[in-house]
Amino acid sequence: MPRVAIGIEYDGRRFCGWQRQDHALSVQQLVEHAASRVADEPVVVHAAGRTDAGVHALGQVAHFETSAERERRSWLLGINSNLPPDISISWVQETEPEFHARYSAEARTYQYIILNQPSRSALWAERAWWLHATLDVESMRSAARRLLGEHDFSAFRAAQCQARTPRRNLQVLEIGERGSFLCFTVRANAFLHHMVRNIVGSLLRIGRGEESPEWLADVLASRDRSRAGMTAPACGLCLVRAHYPVKFAIPAPEVPFGLPRDL
Amino acid sequence: MPRVAIGIEYDGRRFCGWQRQDHALSVQQLVEHAASRVADEPVVVHAAGRTDAGVHALGQVAHFETSAERERRSWLLGINSNLPPDISISWVQETEPEFHARYSAEARTYQYIILNQPSRSALWAERAWWLHATLDVESMRSAARRLLGEHDFSAFRAAQCQARTPRRNLQVLEIGERGSFLCFTVRANAFLHHMVRNIVGSLLRIGRGEESPEWLADVLASRDRSRAGMTAPACGLCLVRAHYPVKFAIPAPEVPFGLPRDL
Repeated sequence: MPRVAIGIEYDGRRFCGWQRQDHALSVQQLVEHAASRVADEPVVVHAAGRTDAGVHALGQVAHFETSAERERRSWLLGINSNLPPDISISWVQETEPEFHARYSAEARTYQYIILNQPSRSALWAERAWWLHATLDVESMRSAARRLLGEHDFSAFRAAQCQARTPRRNLQVLEIGERGSFLCFTVRANAFLHHMVRNIVGSLLRIGRGEESPEWLADVLASRDRSRAGMTAPACGLCLVRAHYPVKFAIPAPEVPFGLPRDL
Repeated sequence: MPRVAIGIEYDGRRFCGWQRQDHALSVQQLVEHAASRVADEPVVVHAAGRTDAGVHALGQVAHFETSAERERRSWLLGINSNLPPDISISWVQETEPEFHARYSAEARTYQYIILNQPSRSALWAERAWWLHATLDVESMRSAARRLLGEHDFSAFRAAQCQARTPRRNLQVLEIGERGSFLCFTVRANAFLHHMVRNIVGSLLRIGRGEESPEWLADVLASRDRSRAGMTAPACGLCLVRAHYPVKFAIPAPEVPFGLPRDL
């Protein structure tokens, strides 16, 4: 059956996350409903990343199989017109039978945004974590470097995580700064449940001077979740990109999450 | 009586605009309610710009008189804790009796954001006007220059405008471009009702090649609203700054509307 790949953007506020659940509204359920309407048959949609409740996506990638044949433009406009305003499809393309949005992905990139200023912001309320603290960003960067590479990330793993192994390869962990904003860019082959938010929460303890950068290496080595920092709130997190082998020609997202690209 | 100046940010979606109305929810009403709670007496709040229904603000400035004496921080945190999440106060300062948020303002700057791409965007749905068109930005810039300076802007004035005179001094009209975004930055001593949105709607006709840049000068000279373009939708518009004489030391907003600052 032909296989169709799609790029998905969503504002995570209203949703219980990507994955279909019985008694809550998921992004998967709405995308499957919309794609099924256009295909005129039920479709099942597989995504690169199972984002949590409240987490946004700019570059979620998914695929589905269908016997329906439609022009690329018909899929794009048709699916979008069957979705609510807070979910949109940014591109559609026919893909090879061996492409799988989840299993073909070589890496995922998330961004986490902190707005660090004395008072909350109405326009950034649902896109950033508002904090008022004096943060030592250089210490956070120094600590961040200690997490790079392949490790057992159990210390940053939620209790309910269903992954088979806690080993992940953290390829990028950068902290950009612009005005009152901090932007954490985190790329790994895959992520454990709450891994980005637990890393951000732990880095903050270092930024506030409560812990030294060395502490983070100790926490990592301990594989003990109880030693790491708090789970940063979902609103600041966005799945910005899923990375695939070049041969699949999957487009990178064009639109920024809401921050300068060069942050 | 002491006079207090405040900086206000809001997501305009839910509101009928800045100004208090009988049967609709206004930003003014909520800010007056919150400030009155902190002052322990009724206060009336005057703002730099009466934004329309659905229009956002990043740098609205307002003032009120009160006999209450509070620390700056108490005003800031107190008012914010009495406001809904989509309105926030970004700074507070005591000001001189001759300061008036509306009458002391020498100019206002608005930004209008267009997202020009084939499909709509979930994350930008309420912050930008989504369009899919091939736009000649250089022609729009050439036309924009013809509006600079002091003119009778009747051609871009809504029928319900209550201003005493249609003469305004347009000081800046720049069109920035980044990826799929266009950002119109418009500064004038003051604005007529719908003036920015009518100018953007008219510039688009030039961008699409339906009219030449010279046409805009003719429309301006005609002072005839029926000759100008459509009113661009409210969602793309944001009051980013009100400008005052330096002696009042009114802070400029720190937070971006959601686009790169250097756009």
